[in-house]
Amino acid sequence: MGKAHGHAYHTVHSMFPDCPKPRMKVIVGRDRAHAERMAELFGWEEVSTNWEEVVRRADIDAVDVSVHGALHAPVAIAAAQAGKHVLCEKPLANTLAEAQAMLDAVRKAGVVHAIQFNYRRVPAVVLARQIIDEGRIGEIRHFRAVYLQDWAMGDVPAVWRFTKSEAGSGSLGDLGAHIIDLCHYLAGDVAEVSGALETFQKERKAIEGGGSVPVTVDDAALVIGRLSNGALASFEATRFAPGRKNHNRFEINGSKGSLWFDLEDLNELHFYSLDDPAHLRGFRNISVTERAAHPYMANWWPEGHIIGWEHSHTHMIHDFLQGVAKGESPRPNFEDGVKCQAVLDAVERAASSRKWETVSAGAARAR
Amino acid sequence: MGKAHGHAYHTVHSMFPDCPKPRMKVIVGRDRAHAERMAELFGWEEVSTNWEEVVRRADIDAVDVSVHGALHAPVAIAAAQAGKHVLCEKPLANTLAEAQAMLDAVRKAGVVHAIQFNYRRVPAVVLARQIIDEGRIGEIRHFRAVYLQDWAMGDVPAVWRFTKSEAGSGSLGDLGAHIIDLCHYLAGDVAEVSGALETFQKERKAIEGGGSVPVTVDDAALVIGRLSNGALASFEATRFAPGRKNHNRFEINGSKGSLWFDLEDLNELHFYSLDDPAHLRGFRNISVTERAAHPYMANWWPEGHIIGWEHSHTHMIHDFLQGVAKGESPRPNFEDGVKCQAVLDAVERAASSRKWETVSAGAARAR
Amino acid sequence: MGKAHGHAYHTVHSMFPDCPKPRMKVIVGRDRAHAERMAELFGWEEVSTNWEEVVRRADIDAVDVSVHGALHAPVAIAAAQAGKHVLCEKPLANTLAEAQAMLDAVRKAGVVHAIQFNYRRVPAVVLARQIIDEGRIGEIRHFRAVYLQDWAMGDVPAVWRFTKSEAGSGSLGDLGAHIIDLCHYLAGDVAEVSGALETFQKERKAIEGGGSVPVTVDDAALVIGRLSNGALASFEATRFAPGRKNHNRFEINGSKGSLWFDLEDLNELHFYSLDDPAHLRGFRNISVTERAAHPYMANWWPEGHIIGWEHSHTHMIHDFLQGVAKGESPRPNFEDGVKCQAVLDAVERAASSRKWETVSAGAARAR
Amino acid sequence: MGKAHGHAYHTVHSMFPDCPKPRMKVIVGRDRAHAERMAELFGWEEVSTNWEEVVRRADIDAVDVSVHGALHAPVAIAAAQAGKHVLCEKPLANTLAEAQAMLDAVRKAGVVHAIQFNYRRVPAVVLARQIIDEGRIGEIRHFRAVYLQDWAMGDVPAVWRFTKSEAGSGSLGDLGAHIIDLCHYLAGDVAEVSGALETFQKERKAIEGGGSVPVTVDDAALVIGRLSNGALASFEATRFAPGRKNHNRFEINGSKGSLWFDLEDLNELHFYSLDDPAHLRGFRNISVTERAAHPYMANWWPEGHIIGWEHSHTHMIHDFLQGVAKGESPRPNFEDGVKCQAVLDAVERAASSRKWETVSAGAARAR
Repeated sequence: MGKAHGHAYHTVHSMFPDCPKPRMKVIVGRDRAHAERMAELFGWEEVSTNWEEVVRRADIDAVDVSVHGALHAPVAIAAAQAGKHVLCEKPLANTLAEAQAMLDAVRKAGVVHAIQFNYRRVPAVVLARQIIDEGRIGEIRHFRAVYLQDWAMGDVPAVWRFTKSEAGSGSLGDLGAHIIDLCHYLAGDVAEVSGALETFQKERKAIEGGGSVPVTVDDAALVIGRLSNGALASFEATRFAPGRKNHNRFEINGSKGSLWFDLEDLNELHFYSLDDPAHLRGFRNISVTERAAHPYMANWWPEGHIIGWEHSHTHMIHDFLQGVAKGESPRPNFEDGVKCQAVLDAVERAASSRKWETVSAGAARAR
Repeated sequence: MGKAHGHAYHTVHSMFPDCPKPRMKVIVGRDRAHAERMAELFGWEEVSTNWEEVVRRADIDAVDVSVHGALHAPVAIAAAQAGKHVLCEKPLANTLAEAQAMLDAVRKAGVVHAIQFNYRRVPAVVLARQIIDEGRIGEIRHFRAVYLQDWAMGDVPAVWRFTKSEAGSGSLGDLGAHIIDLCHYLAGDVAEVSGALETFQKERKAIEGGGSVPVTVDDAALVIGRLSNGALASFEATRFAPGRKNHNRFEINGSKGSLWFDLEDLNELHFYSLDDPAHLRGFRNISVTERAAHPYMANWWPEGHIIGWEHSHTHMIHDFLQGVAKGESPRPNFEDGVKCQAVLDAVERAASSRKWETVSAGAARAR
Repeated sequence: MGKAHGHAYHTVHSMFPDCPKPRMKVIVGRDRAHAERMAELFGWEEVSTNWEEVVRRADIDAVDVSVHGALHAPVAIAAAQAGKHVLCEKPLANTLAEAQAMLDAVRKAGVVHAIQFNYRRVPAVVLARQIIDEGRIGEIRHFRAVYLQDWAMGDVPAVWRFTKSEAGSGSLGDLGAHIIDLCHYLAGDVAEVSGALETFQKERKAIEGGGSVPVTVDDAALVIGRLSNGALASFEATRFAPGRKNHNRFEINGSKGSLWFDLEDLNELHFYSLDDPAHLRGFRNISVTERAAHPYMANWWPEGHIIGWEHSHTHMIHDFLQGVAKGESPRPNFEDGVKCQAVLDAVERAASSRKWETVSAGAARAR
Repeated sequence: MGKAHGHAYHTVHSMFPDCPKPRMKVIVGRDRAHAERMAELFGWEEVSTNWEEVVRRADIDAVDVSVHGALHAPVAIAAAQAGKHVLCEKPLANTLAEAQAMLDAVRKAGVVHAIQFNYRRVPAVVLARQIIDEGRIGEIRHFRAVYLQDWAMGDVPAVWRFTKSEAGSGSLGDLGAHIIDLCHYLAGDVAEVSGALETFQKERKAIEGGGSVPVTVDDAALVIGRLSNGALASFEATRFAPGRKNHNRFEINGSKGSLWFDLEDLNELHFYSLDDPAHLRGFRNISVTERAAHPYMANWWPEGHIIGWEHSHTHMIHDFLQGVAKGESPRPNFEDGVKCQAVLDAVERAASSRKWETVSAGAARAR
């Protein structure tokens, strides 16, 4: 993620001249040599291994928190307390309590905050929201999403993502968080859930020193739920789906039409409308690359010249920088982060209680 | 369904010369005029409105039960008791108790029995099973299926399918039963489930006499489950998905590969294999139309000349007639019907208890 | 083709009650045993090996000419002279002169005539024509089509299709004729062409007796052309495209929109309209299965329950039988057959002269 | 194109650390204000409006020629004579004579040269070449490509691309050149062609001063040809295909398999192999995003995280900069440019003579 964010800061002003050109002041890493390489490649002026110092420096205005989950809360809260604007990777924290503390901190400090639910800023996803806001699919009845990958299959060793104390959860927080946030953005608030979590591969070889290490997070998560507006929702996340590399696919059915999207083909949105004449109805494959008609696309290439995954980050960082310039938190921000965290929390409770569980109301209030 | 079955009996011998040519003796219907029209079109020799009489006639060998759910048990049991072979539409019955009584009846009578889970007999689905049996996708970890339609939206009046006493359930039994059966065929037995049922449109206009009638079945069903082999499963059925006409889509992920299928494009099967060289891996779109290589296709047209939905019925009826000739019940049969019914039963219990529920073991025993 | 036609006559009245039920009087074949098998399967009442006798029988009203190309003219002309209505397989003849003689014969006899350019009667293709007639794609500028197969690769022996004296031509008449006819139906008359013909495999093993036989027809044909309305057209036919089984794909671009179609997915039509709002434009995948909205589909299955390739024949034969009942030749008929033949003729001249060649005006006049 | 190149120079070293970091010395433009904006955005150190001066400056090592076609030859030749390495946009020139003069100039000067046929550097296209080189599709028999766009429809005014003296040709050189080059890269040398050029919209409104201006280039080009290895080829380019934004699609059929690709979905390659078991054959959709297996992708994002169109430029410029570092011209270079130009030249001759024309042998020699 450091690479994707570095690339975005490095290029955002080139493509969006209206966006302030960020001064890339310091990159912080545990591994100084790695941080130095990143600095050389993306143009960070300095390198540090001490985040506590850096987040308090007077010449720093904003902090980008791209570390593993267990450090989100300490870094973000310290930064807010030092009066810095904060952009944080997702999910916001490893627990709901941490996430709420983070939201409290940025609110109290009055700083601009944002969360890198970058898939909200894919042009096709923004267009989906616009189509919904225009009333074109009517009242929403179904939101269904899967986020399938296969990278964890085979011999992958016990990196931090497989350890609960560092990552919080597995596929649920890593992948599920994205599709739950997309549901919040596009369809409505999740009110209650039932779910299952599963770890297919119980042990993995240690990164160092030989031997094996227990996997303490989920490899897959199955969730069904109801939204507060009465719609039904389903979410599935897994790291064990051969051939699915980054298959974040959602479909929304409303009273007047439907939408679907697949992140592996992120320049397209599929839209079906009951308003079309009966003999002409069909899912339209919209190439969301029209300079004159589609979100963010005026700044890119000619029609049909597709953009890549990294620009979901570019757009989110564009929005954050614009937010900093205007003194206003963009969406999604820490409130969205807390709301998503409350759903993750309810899923974990449901997987354990084997019953439907209600999403914490306090969190929902945040919207 | 009467039309689809009539068409199948009328054409099966033409395309499958090895299959006994059925003598289409009597068609029974509540509406004599309609039954007479069907007789004229498909070649039924006689027409009756009295099924009790017909199922006992000495010149009848086999009975095809294509009536609404509430009549499945009475007709099938009477037929079995009269020593007739029985083919029954799905789901087997409106309740698990009825379904078990039907299975008891055919077992006791020693007749050939089959259930019209016709999607098992789509060539691409049979090929999926073959690929699994060949070990090509390894150990199964995920089965996910949706069956989405949109015909119930809008002004559709209160036909029998919206009344619990006649139909048993709504989308669950009508659509969900198919994908649960496909799970049993391809991935393994469903052991436990959690679920939700929803009725979006609470009333519909009466077919006759004006006024409106309450809808007593589900418009949509969401189910998550675990198979007895440890795999995760999800099922979703709805009649409220605009643009989805007959979208029965499943995906199976194993330890070595994946498969997916969509009934609206039923001549194709999609297969991904980790055994392929790394740079060549991708989902193959297999056109399941090879005369020399694919199930049932030697009897149809040249390669790439696709077959239609109705031939899933033709193949099932072919298998039933062959079964009658050999005195052996084909698959799927009433045992498969009971097993599916036990899952439907568990889903209804789970939707009501708001907890995970175990699928009845007695039913599972049937396999 | 005998099997596809037999199947169509056997089932057309079942599905289209408005269509006269044909009495399947006599099947004629060179191989009596084979003809007897077909008679048993599809219900032909008698079998003969003498077409000259049969076409003159008083109890015969109509003759279906499904024989190899060299016999089209003799059979069709004899049938017409005997006052029989005639349906002929495509291409109409092996030469333009023969085709014109056949058209003269049916005109002189005043019989109903039709040509089995069955792809005109695929519902999605009829819908394409309807969309064009409604003015929805505007003035046509491009028609491009390919018809790709792969059955001739490998060890296929020297069947009649590889011999010019029997088949007339190879991929050009077998596949190219279909897409040229679709151009005539949908886009306009071909006025002039340039082209190339190629035989990749110069010899094939003889069917009997060992040894090899020269291939005297083309394996592939490339054609570019101009329509009389000023549009550009391209056609490609080959039997040497691995993985392409029955890939008849066309695309039409007009001043206001586009259409495309692929025969391997024949229940779908793809339509793009510049009349849509700019942010919603995209190719619609229309599932041409709406009972209330799409050609021929009221007589088939519920929405999304696809039909197979054979029903392009069923529909054409339906139209022919209706034509016989009304005493009016349906479209496409021998006039369309001659017009197509004139293009095939021009392509063969162009491939030989290595120049652009004009399509015979006499033929075009036939429309 | 200035924007795409600027972006590539700005980011190439960030993503490809092995690639020398270019010093972006001077940007030259006719419009100083515009050049200054580009300099600010992408980091060019200086701005000039005088290319003659700049190409001779001692502190310049390499010149990137991204101007309209009529200036390619003067700039590139002057740069070569001044001993600068040269990267030139495509097509190489407006005429074959100019192109040959350019090749002579870089050869004589001994400088590194390259041509921005950037689609050769799309990872999926490089993979296609690798699959061909591995012998997986066997001997090539067909190359067919279309490059369809729709931007010229409607009210687009008479920009330089519509004037022969500036652009050389229309769709032929702009779009056709790309697919002809892909044929040379993947399938073999074009030996002879027949073709047609068409201008649908004969006049366009002037950019300034009102009134209309004649269009002197083609809106569409149709070409059929033979390769020197005996394969057949077809090429179609148009700017009048509604809904086709950047639809550069090719298919290659060989004796053992097939490949196809569509630039609007540039992260995928489709591959069919007759070496697969018969029941498993199908076009594989390869997501060309495997870090460990696919060209260029080790430097980008995780699997399934797609890259955008602009990185075909990034990769080409990466190769050019590596070439400069090593003192070796990468492929494609001016030789490939001349070879493509010879085909464009033959197409123009054929469109005029209405006969097949041979591609100039002198040009082919260049390989």
